Amino acid sequence: MTQYLKAKAGEITPEMMTIAKNEQLSAELVRNEVAAGRMVIPANKVHLQKGLDVIGIGIAARTKINANLGNSALSGDAANELEKVNVAIQYGADTVMDLSTGVEINELRRRVIDGVRVPVGTVPLYQMCEELDDIADMKPRDFLDVVEKQAKQGVDYMTIHCGLLQRHLPLADKRLLGIVSRGGSLTAKWMAIHKKENPFYERFEDLCEILREYDVTWSIGDGLRPGCLADASDAAQFGELDVMGELTLRGWAKGTQVMIEGPGHVPMDQIQMNIERQIQVCHGAPFYVLGPVVTDIAPGYDHFTSGIGAAMAAMYGAAMLCYVTPKEHLGLPNLEDVKQGVIAYKIAAHAADVARKRPCARDRDDAISRARGRFDWREQFRLSLDPQTAERYYRESRQTSQDQAAQCVNNAGLETEQFCTMCGPKFCAMRISAEVRKLRNEEK
Amino acid sequence: MTQYLKAKAGEITPEMMTIAKNEQLSAELVRNEVAAGRMVIPANKVHLQKGLDVIGIGIAARTKINANLGNSALSGDAANELEKVNVAIQYGADTVMDLSTGVEINELRRRVIDGVRVPVGTVPLYQMCEELDDIADMKPRDFLDVVEKQAKQGVDYMTIHCGLLQRHLPLADKRLLGIVSRGGSLTAKWMAIHKKENPFYERFEDLCEILREYDVTWSIGDGLRPGCLADASDAAQFGELDVMGELTLRGWAKGTQVMIEGPGHVPMDQIQMNIERQIQVCHGAPFYVLGPVVTDIAPGYDHFTSGIGAAMAAMYGAAMLCYVTPKEHLGLPNLEDVKQGVIAYKIAAHAADVARKRPCARDRDDAISRARGRFDWREQFRLSLDPQTAERYYRESRQTSQDQAAQCVNNAGLETEQFCTMCGPKFCAMRISAEVRKLRNEEK
Repeated sequence: MTQYLKAKAGEITPEMMTIAKNEQLSAELVRNEVAAGRMVIPANKVHLQKGLDVIGIGIAARTKINANLGNSALSGDAANELEKVNVAIQYGADTVMDLSTGVEINELRRRVIDGVRVPVGTVPLYQMCEELDDIADMKPRDFLDVVEKQAKQGVDYMTIHCGLLQRHLPLADKRLLGIVSRGGSLTAKWMAIHKKENPFYERFEDLCEILREYDVTWSIGDGLRPGCLADASDAAQFGELDVMGELTLRGWAKGTQVMIEGPGHVPMDQIQMNIERQIQVCHGAPFYVLGPVVTDIAPGYDHFTSGIGAAMAAMYGAAMLCYVTPKEHLGLPNLEDVKQGVIAYKIAAHAADVARKRPCARDRDDAISRARGRFDWREQFRLSLDPQTAERYYRESRQTSQDQAAQCVNNAGLETEQFCTMCGPKFCAMRISAEVRKLRNEEK
Repeated sequence: MTQYLKAKAGEITPEMMTIAKNEQLSAELVRNEVAAGRMVIPANKVHLQKGLDVIGIGIAARTKINANLGNSALSGDAANELEKVNVAIQYGADTVMDLSTGVEINELRRRVIDGVRVPVGTVPLYQMCEELDDIADMKPRDFLDVVEKQAKQGVDYMTIHCGLLQRHLPLADKRLLGIVSRGGSLTAKWMAIHKKENPFYERFEDLCEILREYDVTWSIGDGLRPGCLADASDAAQFGELDVMGELTLRGWAKGTQVMIEGPGHVPMDQIQMNIERQIQVCHGAPFYVLGPVVTDIAPGYDHFTSGIGAAMAAMYGAAMLCYVTPKEHLGLPNLEDVKQGVIAYKIAAHAADVARKRPCARDRDDAISRARGRFDWREQFRLSLDPQTAERYYRESRQTSQDQAAQCVNNAGLETEQFCTMCGPKFCAMRISAEVRKLRNEEK
């Protein structure tokens, strides 16, 4: 029995209880959301036994973020990738996807699943492709075996590109950038060579059987996500989305949990429409979006171009945000890139939680603002997403201004300084504002 | 005669012609926008003579960004600040504000105005305050002299906090963070000590006379902008906004150009309402916003927390975005912080221009995407907001993977590599997508 089936049967599982507690929601609300398919709990039975901190992904819950990790044929050994996993989780990644396409991916995946307590996602087609000389040689049966093998290992959710059909290929031909999803392009290549329908669509029910057995959550991949602004919201993207809506119902009918992946590159003015359309077409199944990137002109800063889109997407109802690092479009991220990507996405997710007025979302903002008002620097740093960086910036600025500072500040240390170098003591609005308040109180 | 008065009289000035050309708008449309007060042309007659590249700030034009510069009592010598000005302009700042509050501010301002061809803004109260031991000693007449002196120097627009009135002070008392605007808090202190109305409000017409003479544009300062999410959209903020609406009409009646400053810290769900309310209350006068910051929990990353808000504000109709650097709330920015702030805001402004469908806004996105599709790395870098960083990231990733790369890539150089280290050659969606297109074309 999957979480979905138990919820439908009226059962509140221990996992739902945990989520209710963490999200400050009632257990019955969580059960109801899972039963309606609006919330998924990616918790493979194997991983759950090994040790998993369960989360709920859905519109009623806090916005989640995922960090992608994994090597490529050109870069990344296992130790290195595991270090990235740990940094991602340290800075707040709610799930990690192991997208390795390089060497020893079975072993790396095992170490990731055994080593982390957050849900782990994969794209099984990458392993399939890595094992073959050419994707054209893939037998659908072999793919099912890979999925089963990974499910047995404990993978909590899997991206499979089942929604891309033969009738969509001519639509993708018209695009400026064609198919930019790795899984989508590999699937399309197989379909073009064999002149057959998408094998994952054809074997969808078989795949459901495997996923249901381990309670692996579907993450139905958007093989036709737009790869540039010019291709956003086109017939190829929305054609595939319609199929994803059909597969959502079929997935639920087979008792599996279903999540839907989304774009990609989308101009800001189309984001609300994209989210609302997915929610409608896919019957409320949680939307898991990659960015979207809102302008193509800033390679090197795509954690930010996509962070803008991600914040908006989450505000309009996306349930999980797949991070993008500064290296996107340029190369495999290093440790610092992973950190920057996670922090950008924590900001986006948190800002959206505040905007959606999720329970207690603004408490941390108010606490840090109160600390700012009373010049409690230590508390400000402690409540920051990245305490070390905040404190370092503060101290660096003071250091460069030490000579000038000497004449006007008490150097007794951090705690006593009622201003920063941005304004200096004479122009500190916080301090002057406190004076104004005092003056006005004395009047009374 | 100011640009506003000339436009009202039906005259198309050379400055309007230039703006029309640069913005790909008709000259008559520009004249009409300026006459309606929906566009300002900050072009002090003195700076215009010294050499100024004019810009139009308004909803019909491309979104503009401003970079703040200037020393504080604790930090920043002139050479250093001038270097920051140049970096800001290099990366795309449309205007700069010299917010110096430290030593030799007259001289620094002169060098900025003489040295740059973009419009320069100031907050004259800072100089006033620096010249006095205590802001309480300020005589309104002396303030008018400072404004006139700066106007004579060629300052193109000035922030003066005229909208904050006695009746707003009790409203600000109720806030979590009180008054966080430096100018606002200094003005409030003067008002509290003297128990008098805001002297800049009282002398508004006199100020208009000076500004009109040099055609200095008003940037009516929001002394009560919210300084944290908890204080956003409160009675203090909107009380002041109502006064700013009144002052807009009075400024126009005196023949001056008027721009309105806005928040600050605002949750994402309140941004659209804030912009629409300002446009309505201030009769369409251009809105010049600081951020807004959409969450308070990320000091060290406020170029990003505010960049999200700025992108949304511009999409909903803000005309100019005042940048925020990573050091905001922590210290005075250094050269790298200025660069990071400007790039974040260029991204926000450009994404909004695309979303608003401004003329040709998406052309650069499409060009870089086309270059991406044909693996033209050089062209991708050239079209990037920060070509050096994009190329460095690409090369760094390649370098770390050189050993592994050797076996599978042709090392002839940048131009021939049809993939990056993110996916490697076997998983490059761009390449596979091209194969699919070829396969399908062969069928036909």
